[in-house]
Amino acid sequence: MIKVFGHYSPDTDSTGSPLIWAWYLNQIRNTPAEAVLLGQCNTEAQFALKYWGFEQPAIMTDLPAGTPVVIVDTNNPAELPKGINDADIQAIIDHHKLVGGLETRGPIDITIRPLACTATIMYDLIGDDMAQAPRGIKGMMLSCILSDTLEFRSPTTTDADRGLAHGLAKELDIDISALAAEMFAAKSDVSAHSDAELLLMDAKKYSVGDKTFRISVLETTSPEQILSRKDGLIAAMPQVAAEDGADAVLLFVIDILREEATLLVPGDLVRQVAEKSFGVSVSGDTVVLPGIMSRKKQIIPALSL
Amino acid sequence: MIKVFGHYSPDTDSTGSPLIWAWYLNQIRNTPAEAVLLGQCNTEAQFALKYWGFEQPAIMTDLPAGTPVVIVDTNNPAELPKGINDADIQAIIDHHKLVGGLETRGPIDITIRPLACTATIMYDLIGDDMAQAPRGIKGMMLSCILSDTLEFRSPTTTDADRGLAHGLAKELDIDISALAAEMFAAKSDVSAHSDAELLLMDAKKYSVGDKTFRISVLETTSPEQILSRKDGLIAAMPQVAAEDGADAVLLFVIDILREEATLLVPGDLVRQVAEKSFGVSVSGDTVVLPGIMSRKKQIIPALSL
Repeated sequence: MIKVFGHYSPDTDSTGSPLIWAWYLNQIRNTPAEAVLLGQCNTEAQFALKYWGFEQPAIMTDLPAGTPVVIVDTNNPAELPKGINDADIQAIIDHHKLVGGLETRGPIDITIRPLACTATIMYDLIGDDMAQAPRGIKGMMLSCILSDTLEFRSPTTTDADRGLAHGLAKELDIDISALAAEMFAAKSDVSAHSDAELLLMDAKKYSVGDKTFRISVLETTSPEQILSRKDGLIAAMPQVAAEDGADAVLLFVIDILREEATLLVPGDLVRQVAEKSFGVSVSGDTVVLPGIMSRKKQIIPALSL
Repeated sequence: MIKVFGHYSPDTDSTGSPLIWAWYLNQIRNTPAEAVLLGQCNTEAQFALKYWGFEQPAIMTDLPAGTPVVIVDTNNPAELPKGINDADIQAIIDHHKLVGGLETRGPIDITIRPLACTATIMYDLIGDDMAQAPRGIKGMMLSCILSDTLEFRSPTTTDADRGLAHGLAKELDIDISALAAEMFAAKSDVSAHSDAELLLMDAKKYSVGDKTFRISVLETTSPEQILSRKDGLIAAMPQVAAEDGADAVLLFVIDILREEATLLVPGDLVRQVAEKSFGVSVSGDTVVLPGIMSRKKQIIPALSL
């Protein structure tokens, strides 16, 4: 039985894409496969699962050597179980930059494309067999695209993502804006999470010069819900950074509707990074960055010390 | 101008695939691109270039940081220029196992498939635009497949490689066996090469336990031409191994027509490897391994100490 999974801290694409690919392997390729999660998925993914009629996939806690796996939505060993290179990696489908570190035993299928969303790549790979996909699979594909593109607002959005989403919405008779609004509302409800959990929810480690940062992104339609917890978040940062060997946490609160980010500025190091990277002048413990929506396209390429 | 290249010590696939992809980028995608080599290509590749009407591509000796590149037929930094991760890698098309080590600046197109030949993958990627390919491009594609599959004898051969080669041969009105025989005769003419050059011609480094080997493969229709130089080859091995920090050279002389390999056995370490890996008993300084044709599929997976 092949295990299909995305990255730790699963978002909608890392929850939905494994379900899509497991369906394809089981139903079209006659290859037994099971979608699993590497942790509790976020509230938007939970909403999407329920909306399209899926149970939440099991959370995989152990990866015995030799387990056949398909990795989706990441190629970064840091976002995958420790023993990943001892697994029998059978395929990788991803839309992130190649970071190096994954190794396979033999030649396998690897498809990485500069699209906004893993599900869009899967649509191409599945090809004509998409006609056999049930409503839930097509719907999950739509939700993955709306999530990763922030309803086409993110600069990562490509014509392929946009065109596929509109095509699926039409076929499924779904109002894109209404579905996206429900998804984003679900994602914005972070009341159940502690400050430290919020900082870790969608965080990637990244080094600039001799400094290492946890770059955390929270996409929301209610930024005030997060920013009202600013003091607690800033207080939680040193320990969260230290646990991961980082020098600081950069928390970007992305306002999906206003298309801007608010960066929390807990001290001098982050202030310096903000000013050098985004050409702003910082006074106080937050700074608004107009137009910044994408860690991949806008934040990481800009980071400097 | 994008530089398109394969691995060091270019064989037919690493010479022809860059030409195919550069044609596609220039003519179909309106993207200026140039096929280059990372060294003098082998005699089979030279034959194929001439046969299909190509000049030999320039040998690239320098890779300035930021150069836009497309890497084909390898994903192994050890087979690429030292500064490869400082180049602007725009795409990777390959059919080898993922070894890790390459990094890209952003998400790019990466396609790795478990097929025998890079050119076969390119045929799929180019799709309907193949109709516009000139005779030379289609012919080079055919030669790449015949080379990498040893005219379908190698166990790496897939139905996709075989079907494409037969289709191209029919369209181009080429007798596959006659073309393959000419290619293999060209590859078998190693008279111009020193013993050390022969050991390095198609060599990959590989570690087993605490030992590291240069695994050299020479595919030939005239094994006697190489085996008659056995004493000189064995004498050249220690220095070739030492220069690369390896413990020994494993030279497999692949007899394409008899579908067997002869391994040179210069001493105790290689004898032990031969007996443990292939279940043979060795007396003397060579051992015949029936059916062994492929380093990727048969030699590397079997290697043990």
